[in-house]
Amino acid sequence: MKKKLFNQISVIGLGLIGSSFSLAIKKNKIANKVVGYSRSSSTRKAAKKLNLVDTVANSLVKSVKGSDLIIICTPLSTYPKIINEMTPHLEKNSIVTDVGSAKLTTINEVSGLFSKFIQFIPAHPIAGTEQSGPYAGFPELFIDRWCILTPLKNNKPSSVNKIKTLWKSLGSKVEIMSPERHDRVMAITSHLPHLIAYNIVSTAADLETVTKQEIIKYSASGFRDFTRIASSDPVMWRDIFLKNKDAVLEMIGRFSEDLSALQKAVRWEDSKTLHKIFSRTRKVREKIISAGQDTDAVDFGRSNTRKKISKIKNRKK
Amino acid sequence: MKKKLFNQISVIGLGLIGSSFSLAIKKNKIANKVVGYSRSSSTRKAAKKLNLVDTVANSLVKSVKGSDLIIICTPLSTYPKIINEMTPHLEKNSIVTDVGSAKLTTINEVSGLFSKFIQFIPAHPIAGTEQSGPYAGFPELFIDRWCILTPLKNNKPSSVNKIKTLWKSLGSKVEIMSPERHDRVMAITSHLPHLIAYNIVSTAADLETVTKQEIIKYSASGFRDFTRIASSDPVMWRDIFLKNKDAVLEMIGRFSEDLSALQKAVRWEDSKTLHKIFSRTRKVREKIISAGQDTDAVDFGRSNTRKKISKIKNRKK
Repeated sequence: MKKKLFNQISVIGLGLIGSSFSLAIKKNKIANKVVGYSRSSSTRKAAKKLNLVDTVANSLVKSVKGSDLIIICTPLSTYPKIINEMTPHLEKNSIVTDVGSAKLTTINEVSGLFSKFIQFIPAHPIAGTEQSGPYAGFPELFIDRWCILTPLKNNKPSSVNKIKTLWKSLGSKVEIMSPERHDRVMAITSHLPHLIAYNIVSTAADLETVTKQEIIKYSASGFRDFTRIASSDPVMWRDIFLKNKDAVLEMIGRFSEDLSALQKAVRWEDSKTLHKIFSRTRKVREKIISAGQDTDAVDFGRSNTRKKISKIKNRKK
Repeated sequence: MKKKLFNQISVIGLGLIGSSFSLAIKKNKIANKVVGYSRSSSTRKAAKKLNLVDTVANSLVKSVKGSDLIIICTPLSTYPKIINEMTPHLEKNSIVTDVGSAKLTTINEVSGLFSKFIQFIPAHPIAGTEQSGPYAGFPELFIDRWCILTPLKNNKPSSVNKIKTLWKSLGSKVEIMSPERHDRVMAITSHLPHLIAYNIVSTAADLETVTKQEIIKYSASGFRDFTRIASSDPVMWRDIFLKNKDAVLEMIGRFSEDLSALQKAVRWEDSKTLHKIFSRTRKVREKIISAGQDTDAVDFGRSNTRKKISKIKNRKK
């Protein structure tokens, strides 16, 4: 029998990412055993029902015993408590990794909490959907998606390679970068877009002169696109903004500066500036599509557009 | 033979909306004849090739002769020139309508240009995709979408009803409101979302410390959602912002105010405020989905997510 990459993997937190990871590990036979733990008893029940892992542990301490890999899939603010509680019970030479979306602050907060016999190798799979919780998970989530590793100075190259192999085995492409660079790249590609989406949906919800019903009714004219990422998990996102504060504040500053310039162009009816800005943004989407990072189907290939077309086809029959 | 709603319809402008409208009129047999006109000779050629209309006219004046309905499907800034040029050649008692996304300023600009024998009945189908031009059109575009009419005081109720019947015949649901209300509703549901999308894509494109390649590569983490509407037609959108200036400026003001509050919450690590804002926005999406205004499929049902899932399924075989 071929030796598996890990003997026993503990998955701490069984939300969208933890449950998808567990299912992917099982499906791709990466470990002999997967143990799962969630603080919430209803999530533990769901994990049993959905058969997410081989064993659902009733405590954090029990869940990590005997594991050679522990992966933390919980909101960033929970890391210190989890690490403090599990550290005395970790097997010597085991690897701890995570899936968190902000690196530098988190690494500074927690890397001192481990014993010298433990490797903490921070990772971030750039994968997810707007849904959350154990029922949202599916084993294909990581296929063709990037996973960024931000190794620490004291990480053994062989351990880093093991984590690299792990993510590749689940279908991901792996990139290595510094925590600082990771946080800046994510601030613009992920964190600012989420903040802006949350903000515009909130602005619309507050508008007393246009009814909520009208906002829902006419949302297909643009607004609805923002509501998808603005329905992402609130606790996870609260923590991301707190743990990537500096880079996020810089990006808000740049965004606001650009918005003021655009606002001025609208106020002064500066049609040349408006046309120039609106023309260059189209090219960005073309690049994203040709890089295979989004569908080229109209309207994201939304299923109700497809339904509409088949409806009229059926009418004609 | 059943009498058709119109004898001859002239479609001025054969981009996404004009071409979709023409195809829908033909498909649903709303008129005996559809005449199309575009200022651009390449669009006229495409219209012939795609069989968008029964006759492609070589001049605006020729295109309107003998028509009982003329529909303007060009950017808002072109209206005064088009109306001045065609008015002497319009048939007595014909109806002129449009598909423009901003109403009040446009109505004030053009309603005085018509002779008293012509009914100008402003309309706005809330339909479109991020694509533009004659090749982007398809006859099902208006099905199950709203069309807002903003009739003028001197419009005959029978003529307004005819336009209402027209849009219903193409599959749309029709709403009647004042130009002022239309412009406010669209400012929040459509114009502000487009401006914000254009702005964030522009901010990202300018960022000198993160490479363009990285922005493309990691765009699936949130950014790509904004690039769809930021790739909409630049001329059309330039004109919308200029013609709905007041309502758009008000919405930018509210958005910026909310963003400053959110920025402050990030800076001061006010986790309660962040959690509160991020929790309420999720409910808005739930309402949009239950109103049938967006798909409930994860990730908008993006086709590359579907492909991914089928890819892994094929692997397993």
